[in-house]
Amino acid sequence: MSVKIYQGDILYASSAEKLNVFEKSYIVVENGVVEGIYPVIPEKYKDIPVTCYGRKLIIPAFSDLHVHASQYVQRGIGMDCLLSDWLNHYTFPQESQFSDLSYAKNCYDAFVDDMIRHGTFHANIFATIHREATDYLYSRMEEKGLYGFVGKVNMDRNAPDFLRESTEPSLRETKVFLDTHSGSKKVRPILAPRFAPTCSQKLMDGLGALAKKYNCGVHTHLVESRWESQEALRLFPDHRSDAEIYERAGLMDYGPSIFAHVIFPGAEDMRILKKHNSVAVHCPDATTNIVAGIMPLARMHDAGVNIAIGSDIAGGHGIAIYRQIARAVQLSKLKEFYEPDDNRTITITQAFYHATKEAGSVFGKIGSFENGYLFNALVIDSMEDPWMELSAAERLERFCYTGDDRNIKARFIEGQEISL
Amino acid sequence: MSVKIYQGDILYASSAEKLNVFEKSYIVVENGVVEGIYPVIPEKYKDIPVTCYGRKLIIPAFSDLHVHASQYVQRGIGMDCLLSDWLNHYTFPQESQFSDLSYAKNCYDAFVDDMIRHGTFHANIFATIHREATDYLYSRMEEKGLYGFVGKVNMDRNAPDFLRESTEPSLRETKVFLDTHSGSKKVRPILAPRFAPTCSQKLMDGLGALAKKYNCGVHTHLVESRWESQEALRLFPDHRSDAEIYERAGLMDYGPSIFAHVIFPGAEDMRILKKHNSVAVHCPDATTNIVAGIMPLARMHDAGVNIAIGSDIAGGHGIAIYRQIARAVQLSKLKEFYEPDDNRTITITQAFYHATKEAGSVFGKIGSFENGYLFNALVIDSMEDPWMELSAAERLERFCYTGDDRNIKARFIEGQEISL
Repeated sequence: MSVKIYQGDILYASSAEKLNVFEKSYIVVENGVVEGIYPVIPEKYKDIPVTCYGRKLIIPAFSDLHVHASQYVQRGIGMDCLLSDWLNHYTFPQESQFSDLSYAKNCYDAFVDDMIRHGTFHANIFATIHREATDYLYSRMEEKGLYGFVGKVNMDRNAPDFLRESTEPSLRETKVFLDTHSGSKKVRPILAPRFAPTCSQKLMDGLGALAKKYNCGVHTHLVESRWESQEALRLFPDHRSDAEIYERAGLMDYGPSIFAHVIFPGAEDMRILKKHNSVAVHCPDATTNIVAGIMPLARMHDAGVNIAIGSDIAGGHGIAIYRQIARAVQLSKLKEFYEPDDNRTITITQAFYHATKEAGSVFGKIGSFENGYLFNALVIDSMEDPWMELSAAERLERFCYTGDDRNIKARFIEGQEISL
Repeated sequence: MSVKIYQGDILYASSAEKLNVFEKSYIVVENGVVEGIYPVIPEKYKDIPVTCYGRKLIIPAFSDLHVHASQYVQRGIGMDCLLSDWLNHYTFPQESQFSDLSYAKNCYDAFVDDMIRHGTFHANIFATIHREATDYLYSRMEEKGLYGFVGKVNMDRNAPDFLRESTEPSLRETKVFLDTHSGSKKVRPILAPRFAPTCSQKLMDGLGALAKKYNCGVHTHLVESRWESQEALRLFPDHRSDAEIYERAGLMDYGPSIFAHVIFPGAEDMRILKKHNSVAVHCPDATTNIVAGIMPLARMHDAGVNIAIGSDIAGGHGIAIYRQIARAVQLSKLKEFYEPDDNRTITITQAFYHATKEAGSVFGKIGSFENGYLFNALVIDSMEDPWMELSAAERLERFCYTGDDRNIKARFIEGQEISL
């Protein structure tokens, strides 16, 4: 058995209300799994060497539950555009290039490396419609030891010619993708209909059948804009909510159902999300950049819907989930200012919880340091000015607001330190 | 005469609508001043050696027109608080420590270095009420060759005991501060009544007299929150607007009048700002963090009010003005979403213009590369992925959204390269 001990200021959020802080403490990791956190090293471990990080912070690594890997190359450009111009002028032409595997490799290699650099070791990823490029992304995630869901995108209507699939080939390619990766563990396939407006009923039903056959979850966009909500119901006229489209197609019964944005959820959407233990993914920068409004995160959380955080590269421009944690707090204040709702601003602890333990739950025992959780962890600079002491909680907050990848001093997956 | 030539992709905004882009061009700098930009080197300069930056960007250095240097040490902490808790729990106790000159030196040294690191060479700065510490900040700015306005803060009411001045000593110390720095050029003193709620009429009038005697501008907060607007008029009952308080005290007739936030300007505020050629400073992150709402930037600009950008450390958590440029675009979209106003979102070019040429105008011929402007400049990485070419304008945008100090490859003040 491998036992390792790390000393530092150890923090994790066990709930949205509870940031657990163990300053100057020891975390014992057995075979990659957290055994316990102690103020002094227990007798039985007295011969195990300790890796000391002083006043540095030891925190769970982040999960990104909504990201378009293929849009990594267009991060931070075209941001003056609103959604439709941005899709048509930048995103769709760019995604079409993933038919070229060498282009895809350049992008996906850089994307995966950048995620690791910024401490995201678990991700739920949209690729493109192109199966071969998506296979490559999948294998790259596996090669690097990351946890993930990877989806080959489906769209058979309302997309430009060069990105629109026919229904049958779309389903056939998806089946090949699922067959290829059926034995996978840490990285798993997920179904990724882009969103209701780009998918016919026949395609949705076909994907539902694959979900059942392959015991597979779904990743898509839900009520992400007023236009999208209305268009979805116009195209699926016998449905009462956007979520019902996925539910009735049989896409929410196997594996996780992960919905990005969820800006305008109706009561029916909320009911369906709760019933299926779905995850709604808040993407603060993206929701600002594409002018979609702000998710009612606090209200949804209070109602019992699972919440995670997403970078939504490249609607969002930055890959760092810690910065999106800070942005989630910021946006909750703007939302409360413009749509007062009983002072429902969120705390940094709550946002951190959504981005670690709550998001991590779709991958396994990930995102916390409670006993039995994987030691997928980051060591963060002390974040202190030398002449002024701060609490560990304040330093975690400062990292989320002002830190960058230089402040991440070590990275662990299943107890193994990884290098960049 | 010193002549220097730099080659690169040269960009500057001459107006809110016009980003001037000269790819693969040469900028000639004579005695620190821009002489011209050329596609090929003119005959008369053919013997001057050229510093080649390839596809790197050459842009004007940034101006930060609202920043609390003394709050640098509390950046990125306490952000779960709303304004009054944040002031009382973090800011006021922290500011009181600037009576200790060694504490002040630590903070101000780190602050000035970090500004330079992030490419801000011109700044309009709040210190604290403490004259000696403010003198130190002033001299530190001069020592580093920066341009600035530095203000000793005044407050004689509505502040905790440990930070509240008596009126006469406040004026007396301010006069000593002005006397000390009367011969200064690049760094100049400015009057800094914190805001109307913390200043008596007598203090305002006394500062007005000093403004006249020393030909000195004013830097304060204006209609920064609903509370502040109402409180100002309650405490100055014979005034019709927040701006009129400063106008009638004689604070807007000498030097620049620079007002932070300006979230809720009435018609009277707007009229007075335009009359005095004042500058309204948009601080996107701060305005989000302290829940003050969003400045009607586009409407004010259209009405002819000068606009600049501020980091507002530490209501804002980040010192980088380039990131606040991106955030200004983002907030303009959220404002348009929540308060639709004829599609008045702003472009990256407009935000860049406000943070360079329009802001720089308070310091002199600064913030542009038109002929006759100082070559206060930054050289920025190409910001390209190696396998995908982008335009220079796209790469400037990417820097604002995703870049950091590592992407700033060289820094010039008056044509002289400076080191960190």
